[in-house]
Amino acid sequence: MILTITLNPAVDVTYEVDELVPHATHRVRAVREQAGGKGVNVSRVLHQVGHPTMATGLLGGPTGDLVRGRLAAAGIETAFTPITATTRRTVVVTDTEDATVFNEPGPAVTDAEWSAFTGSLNALSTGATCVVMSGSLPAGVDPAAYAELCALLPVPAVVDTSGPALLAAAEAGANLLKPNAAELSEATGIQDTYAAAQHLRDRGATTVVVTRGADGMLAVTPDGTWSARLGERIAGNPTGAGDAATAALAAGHATGADWPERLREAVAWSAAAVPVPHAGEVDLPTLDRLRPLVTVTKENP
Amino acid sequence: MILTITLNPAVDVTYEVDELVPHATHRVRAVREQAGGKGVNVSRVLHQVGHPTMATGLLGGPTGDLVRGRLAAAGIETAFTPITATTRRTVVVTDTEDATVFNEPGPAVTDAEWSAFTGSLNALSTGATCVVMSGSLPAGVDPAAYAELCALLPVPAVVDTSGPALLAAAEAGANLLKPNAAELSEATGIQDTYAAAQHLRDRGATTVVVTRGADGMLAVTPDGTWSARLGERIAGNPTGAGDAATAALAAGHATGADWPERLREAVAWSAAAVPVPHAGEVDLPTLDRLRPLVTVTKENP
Repeated sequence: MILTITLNPAVDVTYEVDELVPHATHRVRAVREQAGGKGVNVSRVLHQVGHPTMATGLLGGPTGDLVRGRLAAAGIETAFTPITATTRRTVVVTDTEDATVFNEPGPAVTDAEWSAFTGSLNALSTGATCVVMSGSLPAGVDPAAYAELCALLPVPAVVDTSGPALLAAAEAGANLLKPNAAELSEATGIQDTYAAAQHLRDRGATTVVVTRGADGMLAVTPDGTWSARLGERIAGNPTGAGDAATAALAAGHATGADWPERLREAVAWSAAAVPVPHAGEVDLPTLDRLRPLVTVTKENP
Repeated sequence: MILTITLNPAVDVTYEVDELVPHATHRVRAVREQAGGKGVNVSRVLHQVGHPTMATGLLGGPTGDLVRGRLAAAGIETAFTPITATTRRTVVVTDTEDATVFNEPGPAVTDAEWSAFTGSLNALSTGATCVVMSGSLPAGVDPAAYAELCALLPVPAVVDTSGPALLAAAEAGANLLKPNAAELSEATGIQDTYAAAQHLRDRGATTVVVTRGADGMLAVTPDGTWSARLGERIAGNPTGAGDAATAALAAGHATGADWPERLREAVAWSAAAVPVPHAGEVDLPTLDRLRPLVTVTKENP
């Protein structure tokens, strides 16, 4: 079982409009509501591809009930700690051209709620092959929260975060970090992707997998360095592609696949998320079609 | 007591952003959620100014619970008929320049739900001096619904609607219609405001009050015709000014004030809604200040 932690989950609301015009009134043609937040998306993808998963984190208010209800309805096991404040929404307005995003601020989390959550984790992680920590932190939660959780948990941690939290997670000995190239160079101040990834390993991370959009991925691991890329461009919406990559890397850890195989899966899952217009889902026929099209190369940097 | 009917209420969500840029990601600085829909706004203004009111209509889902809860928390009596589908939201994104509005489609209402609602009205309107019907109709409700309710109810009806529903309400003998000038000419096909108002009276409406934005109002009544306007321009957001005018006209009916007095109040309440950035509320000190500044003129058209 792969446990995902989402400290700042969301109800993702999608509005379809004909054309977004600032300062006009829009008739919304279609409304879609789904459970969101990066860790929740990882659980949704894992569940869809057939890997046992459980989602935990912090949920509050009617939006929190909606996230819990949607995951339960999808058959995904949940064990969120309740909080008094209300889980945020994101509103994504899509028109024929692109998406316009409005991110509500997250709820404030009290010290008592944080203690209740961390106190629940040991029991929850029993039987977990790894724990995925992903996404932003709500107000009231220390920026070093992921590092605290890495140190606390008895199982390997896969962490998808950015900024100082990325450095802190490395220092706390995260098993796998999955920044994108921009997040990696921003956090480390190092432009070269390999050197920056190696810097995080020097700080304490076991493996660093860097996602590079359509240019594929670079994995710097204790067993060597590999790059992987797809032989074609996929049209669609890249939102959620990173979460699908994280899901694949956690699944690869769980099954003990070798690095070339993990990277092949991560590139294929990530690309198979692109044709789906919302996060937390891959197109399964596309996934099957793309696996053989991924090229994995051993690097000698 | 003034009974308000809102067939398609809403949760009005307001997002404050720095600047709305199409196809960009926005951090929402502040979120506001309130009970909305035109009839609900009329009840909120009546309650604020001190007139007894009860709100009814159709509510469903978690958003419906939120509307009911907010009205109850404000001390406003409610008696909504529950529906299975979910009450809509409106999202208003405000930046330093103006508001951008996204209106979700309303819920679908079943025949059984509509029957339950109409069946409840006789008891609810006992003790009501008048009934206000205001706003759009949800899917599954006949466009002639307001006319049906006018014919059904034993008390005078104040109706704020547009299009064919406006003509139907006139024919059903509504006591007072409150279109704005654009709605009036669009529904009747008559450009001249007085002639168009008289046309609705010829069809069966007792009184027609036309709101003309900053140009004030025109009332064509069985006792004569009056115009009213304010001697100054009020800066702010005109959203909700029409609902405040409807509230004042219903309150005037309830107290039996004469037409010049009703119009003075309607213009003052309407203008006092403009400094408040959201609908369903007036600025009370502004209301007191503006009352003496309204000029009412007997017209001899």
